[in-house]
Amino acid sequence: MPSLELEHVAVAVVDLDKAVSDLSSLWGLSPTRREVVADQGVEEATIPVGAASLQLIAPTGPDTAIGRFLEQRGEGLHHIAYAVDDLEATLGELKARGVRLIDERPRPGGGGHSIAFVHPESSHGVLVELVEKKR
Amino acid sequence: MPSLELEHVAVAVVDLDKAVSDLSSLWGLSPTRREVVADQGVEEATIPVGAASLQLIAPTGPDTAIGRFLEQRGEGLHHIAYAVDDLEATLGELKARGVRLIDERPRPGGGGHSIAFVHPESSHGVLVELVEKKR
Repeated sequence: MPSLELEHVAVAVVDLDKAVSDLSSLWGLSPTRREVVADQGVEEATIPVGAASLQLIAPTGPDTAIGRFLEQRGEGLHHIAYAVDDLEATLGELKARGVRLIDERPRPGGGGHSIAFVHPESSHGVLVELVEKKR
Repeated sequence: MPSLELEHVAVAVVDLDKAVSDLSSLWGLSPTRREVVADQGVEEATIPVGAASLQLIAPTGPDTAIGRFLEQRGEGLHHIAYAVDDLEATLGELKARGVRLIDERPRPGGGGHSIAFVHPESSHGVLVELVEKKR
């Protein structure tokens, strides 16, 4: 199995401006990137915290995965992401090991990277995103 | 504000042996440390994922914070931890900025480190642990 490096931890928030402002005033943290990822129905802000990042994600509307998550569970931890060198190969390897994939193929994510999600049932309740960074 | 580095992401699990075994067989991940932290009512397994770690935490009994979390929400993401250089100074700085602390003073955590928890209401629903590593 190729090595997995924690790339970000994503936090679902209702209001991205307010969350960015609170993390700045309370924690001294600032985003380096902010982007709408239409495919996922989110606007995200990426905040470096050492080698990994905190990613704040707010829904672009109520009828999105994050909109429904917030309605059911409120704000909080949503998923974690691992960086991998070769996403297609990693998906094949995970599938062969019996992991339940949400995305069988890489799709476009934020920052121009390729991403795929893995079902929480294969990671003890944790939704996992895999990221192959744009070269 | 001193810099914050993501140190670990903690996942609440029912059965630590089963979770360790599943993460090995499905994801090729292995723990480097396993320890009972009596003060927190958990047994934890630490799995390196790049610069940060995944920390699996299982309750030592039902009447513990993690036991109650599992009963209410099931397995999944529980908290994140930031490494800081000087925990006492960081707690003072956060308090001055209006952050709601759970622990006003450092207390013993796993691995011989000093730790303190910060209330999720000060971090958009995310329970945050601060860790000052043993020198």
